[in-house]
Amino acid sequence: MEIRIERATTLKEKPKAGEALGFGKYYTDHMFVMDWDRGQGWHDARIVPFGPIPMDPASMVLHYAQETFEGLKAYRTKDDRILLFRPEMNARRFANSNRRLCMPEVAEEDFVEAVTQLVACEKDWVPAEEGTSLYIRPFMFATEAAVGVHPASSYKFVIILSPVGAYYPEGVNPVKIYVEDEYVRATPGGTGFTKCGGNYAASIAAQVKAEEMGFTQVLWLDGVHRKYVEEVGTMNVMFMIDNEIYTAPCDGTVLPGVTRDSIIHILKSWGYKVNEMHLAIDDLMKAGHDKTLQEAFGTGTAAVISPIGELRYKEDEVTINDFKTGELTQKLYDTLTGIQWGDIEDTFGWTREVK
Amino acid sequence: MEIRIERATTLKEKPKAGEALGFGKYYTDHMFVMDWDRGQGWHDARIVPFGPIPMDPASMVLHYAQETFEGLKAYRTKDDRILLFRPEMNARRFANSNRRLCMPEVAEEDFVEAVTQLVACEKDWVPAEEGTSLYIRPFMFATEAAVGVHPASSYKFVIILSPVGAYYPEGVNPVKIYVEDEYVRATPGGTGFTKCGGNYAASIAAQVKAEEMGFTQVLWLDGVHRKYVEEVGTMNVMFMIDNEIYTAPCDGTVLPGVTRDSIIHILKSWGYKVNEMHLAIDDLMKAGHDKTLQEAFGTGTAAVISPIGELRYKEDEVTINDFKTGELTQKLYDTLTGIQWGDIEDTFGWTREVK
Repeated sequence: MEIRIERATTLKEKPKAGEALGFGKYYTDHMFVMDWDRGQGWHDARIVPFGPIPMDPASMVLHYAQETFEGLKAYRTKDDRILLFRPEMNARRFANSNRRLCMPEVAEEDFVEAVTQLVACEKDWVPAEEGTSLYIRPFMFATEAAVGVHPASSYKFVIILSPVGAYYPEGVNPVKIYVEDEYVRATPGGTGFTKCGGNYAASIAAQVKAEEMGFTQVLWLDGVHRKYVEEVGTMNVMFMIDNEIYTAPCDGTVLPGVTRDSIIHILKSWGYKVNEMHLAIDDLMKAGHDKTLQEAFGTGTAAVISPIGELRYKEDEVTINDFKTGELTQKLYDTLTGIQWGDIEDTFGWTREVK
Repeated sequence: MEIRIERATTLKEKPKAGEALGFGKYYTDHMFVMDWDRGQGWHDARIVPFGPIPMDPASMVLHYAQETFEGLKAYRTKDDRILLFRPEMNARRFANSNRRLCMPEVAEEDFVEAVTQLVACEKDWVPAEEGTSLYIRPFMFATEAAVGVHPASSYKFVIILSPVGAYYPEGVNPVKIYVEDEYVRATPGGTGFTKCGGNYAASIAAQVKAEEMGFTQVLWLDGVHRKYVEEVGTMNVMFMIDNEIYTAPCDGTVLPGVTRDSIIHILKSWGYKVNEMHLAIDDLMKAGHDKTLQEAFGTGTAAVISPIGELRYKEDEVTINDFKTGELTQKLYDTLTGIQWGDIEDTFGWTREVK
């Protein structure tokens, strides 16, 4: 893939060292853009100054949400190298999302090449403070101007970058989770396994409700039986019960998380038994009460690991590990972030240096 | 609501009389736009020249599909009046969609006022040929630039207009319908009752599959039991069995169609018993085989009534009314379109003249 580069004539002032970066508060000077038209395929791959995209008011993305995205990060090591973490996994999941939404696929090598070249171009934007990184957001959306519902005849694939702060500026701390039994995130035959915009729009109401009740996130149950544990907020979720790990299988309703997959690999390398199975909420709450539920945590790109200290299901409530971050949870967090930031040897071959 | 009007300096050439208008091929000279910001609410209602909207690449609508829409039409009567059809129903449904998606509501009177003023401003664009109309597309989307998932802090409410052709240029004809048993449109706890973009993006794969197999639309089954009939394509669906009418109830997964509601009122005024209930696909196919299934049709704003001539469910197939448009179906089509185009007296008080 040939990528044309048009450099910005004036560069933005970068956030000062030590300044709170937040998440999505700053965007870099450039973005990657590529167009797709039926009959022509992908064309005009380019890195151009970050700026507004003019949208026809009839653009299909604004009406029928034919849109998908990915999320990954670039990390600055102590010896000033820039690392990507398993970008090919994002490329493959993006292709799966796009197939389900009847959108064109981006070849794995083109996806990785576009991410790599854009990050290389913006390497000065990768922050250096502990726990900070450059968040990478590839996304695709339908641009055809039409009010009929059909696969669009034109799309844009765009990548934007945002330097982001440490997810836990005060260290990893457990959160309170509300088990949602009114709203549903996904159902078999739907789009739960994809990163399509519609999944996220539909999830906001439950998140708002949970926050109003004093919880940080929701734990989603399956849409058919309202019984089996699926995800927590926008993360995968894992439970350590009787020294074994339990997490929902990726069979259509659960997002196949890159962090989820990495954590499973690490756990297995440590000799843990990982059960990818449908765990009933009643069994989980019971394990919480009889204290066989030892640890619980969400996994995702943004937070990496998010320990769960409390679960509330209807009138029932359990505290996990005395509302303290579990030993295994902390060790997983330290190991995975250690690999991502290049502090620990990457025996899995997951990181890719951006030259 | 105060609406500022900025007129286009040059007007587009209108399609010539007799030219095939299609659906969404032409857009008028102006659009309505209004902005919402947290703390400020709705502001800057305006009718401005139709044109591109500059979008920040981080606009939340492009990532998390916080977007909703409506669809209605303006009709030109033989004596040259312009009629709207129950626009307050669209206003109410729009508010319901926006509540579910955690988006701001537009007051019913403001919604109707915006539609009315824009149509009045573009009244020369309402076509006159039989069966043609001006399609009205109100829509709202999140504009805040952010990569975190949360209710956006800013939105745009836009209305665009498109003159559209007769849905059946060769007259009302039955279509072949494939009963979809792999993909799911909606599930309780989800967004099935709303017109949010995500519902439509998720539905495209089934539509593509049905077309490839030689069918016009899919019939959706419920997402929990995969057993009960819900909608057909993007329309509500009704069946006449043993002289009674059956249609799915609006209890969360089915879109509360304005055409659906109007048809139910007309049917009841004619003395028909209308059963809003969950009809099992097995019972429907059985009724097809023993010929107690007399007629079947979809209802929606675009087509008004779409007769169903054939149903295919797995290996089973039934033909309805010898693949001819049923007597009741035709009478409903003639009555409702007669009211909409002002040819039949509107005893229900549904039409509103645009002065």
